[in-house]
Parts: sequence; structure tokens; C-alpha cells
Amino acid sequence: MKLSRGVEWGLHCAVLLAVTPDGPPVSRQKLAAEYDLPEAYLVKHLHSMVRSGILQSTSGPNGGFRLARPPADITALDVVEAVEGSAPPFTCQEIRRRGRGAAPPELCAEPCTVNSVMTAAHQAWRDSLRGVTVADLLERLPEGALARSRP
Amino acid sequence: MKLSRGVEWGLHCAVLLAVTPDGPPVSRQKLAAEYDLPEAYLVKHLHSMVRSGILQSTSGPNGGFRLARPPADITALDVVEAVEGSAPPFTCQEIRRRGRGAAPPELCAEPCTVNSVMTAAHQAWRDSLRGVTVADLLERLPEGALARSRP
Ligand code: FES
Ligand code: FES
Repeated sequence: MKLSRGVEWGLHCAVLLAVTPDGPPVSRQKLAAEYDLPEAYLVKHLHSMVRSGILQSTSGPNGGFRLARPPADITALDVVEAVEGSAPPFTCQEIRRRGRGAAPPELCAEPCTVNSVMTAAHQAWRDSLRGVTVADLLERLPEGALARSRP
Repeated sequence: MKLSRGVEWGLHCAVLLAVTPDGPPVSRQKLAAEYDLPEAYLVKHLHSMVRSGILQSTSGPNGGFRLARPPADITALDVVEAVEGSAPPFTCQEIRRRGRGAAPPELCAEPCTVNSVMTAAHQAWRDSLRGVTVADLLERLPEGALARSRP
């Protein structure tokens, strides 16, 4: 069970863009240089965040990326699922219906108990990430951590 | 972010072995046939559960697998981490220390805020799975679901 490195990049870029949410768009070059990230690969993730409605992108010589919503309206979950997708990590293959111990169909109307437990854990993970916004992340950064990025 | 199919297999096998925790060991063939699982691949996961102290294995013609502890002392988390490993899905690459926006070392003494948020979500997931035991899973199964497996 591994999350893409893009999760770290996407969250940090969102926080960086939250420093000046009303400022001009930040170019892909500047975002990549900020954390020394591979530009093409970073842009792939930024475009996923555009598709999810977290970022706006503008083209042209002064184009780049901005937050599409106020930082307080973007949760960590929004960013993580934009980058990683929202498919749950556990997929029930309905093994209870198979083999020598196959449960009869009438006992399989409800989701399997094991499946429900795995789903509840995924919801706990999602709830935890949903409880933190990009505005919170920015506020919790140590004073000065983004000093060089401020305009 | 994907969990191995072995998680479903391991949890169901643990519940199956919890039906008769004091009974004789159940052979690998019987466990595989119960859910029509590929035996060699299932055994790999069962051995991980042995190494984690969840199962005992005995060899010989009547050998097989048993629970190593009472079902109430084995959590869903124990099984999931035995099968999947316990490495957290998010790994901080310390990008805050890199590039044009690199934070000075004195601001990096504490774990990064983004990292802390991802770690808290993983703990919420673990806490959720730790709150359910194999005994709970067995009890919550619909009446009759394991009827064919009872001795
Ligand atoms: S049948 Fe899939 S989790 Fe039980
Ligand atoms: S530097 Fe890794 S999460 Fe912030």
C-alpha cells in the first residue's frame, strides 16, 4: 500500500499557492524549482488537481497555476484524492461466495463483515484528511518556512 | 494505493480458524478449498501470519494452521499488517529542504506539517482496524454463513 510521491508535491504546492491566493498565477517552472521537482512529472499531478477543481491553470507567457477556491475550502483529502484517485485500497473479491465454504446467496445480500471493517477504516482515513484544510496547513507551518516564497 | 488480495484471504482464514480455536490444525489444502484460493499463494500469506504470531503451523500428515492466540486477542490490524506489512503508505521525501524554497535546517527540526497530517490519517486507519477483533468478525457474520465449515 503506497501513495504516489505526487501526494507530497501536490500538498506542498497547494500550500505554496495559498500564500498569495489572489496573486498572479505561478508558473510550472517556478513551482518545480521551489522544491527541485521533475517538472514534467509535477505538471501531470498539477493537471489532475485542475481536473478535480482544486487548481486553475492559465496559459500564455504569464500563465501558470492558482488555487481555484479559497484555501479554507480545500481539504487535504481533496488534494490527496486528486493526485492519487479515490479508489479504496481494499477491494472485496467476494470470496465468501466461492469454494467449498461458499455462503448461500441469501446470506450475501449485505456487504461482507470483513469488507465493512475495511471500508470503515478507509472512511476513518478519509475523515482524518477531510478535517484539515490547506489554510490550516499554511497556518501550522513554522514562521519563516515559506519566507523565500513570499512575493 | 492498493492492498494485496491476501488481506481478504487472511482475514477470512482467521475467522474460519476462529470457529474452532481449540480444534485440530486445518490443512493448507482445506483452507484453500474453502474459498477456492490458489494454494501456494495463500500459503505465502499464512506463513506471514505465522511470522507475526497470529497463526501456528504444524507439519506432518495431520499438520496445518491454527490460531496462535484467542480470537479476541487478534485484531483486524494484526492480520492486515501481517499480510501487507506495516510500512505507512505515505513517505515524506523532505522536499521542504530542497530547491529554491528550501527551508533552513533550524525550521526542519520537527516533522513537516504535511507529513504529520498524513501520519495522523494513517493512525486513524490503524485505530479503526485495531478496534475490531477476529472474535468480533466471527460474531458479526450472518447466522449460517460458516455452517459448512463447522466440524
Ligand atoms: S467476501 Fe470479500 S471481504 Fe468478505
Ligand atoms: S517535506 Fe515531506 S511532507 Fe513536507
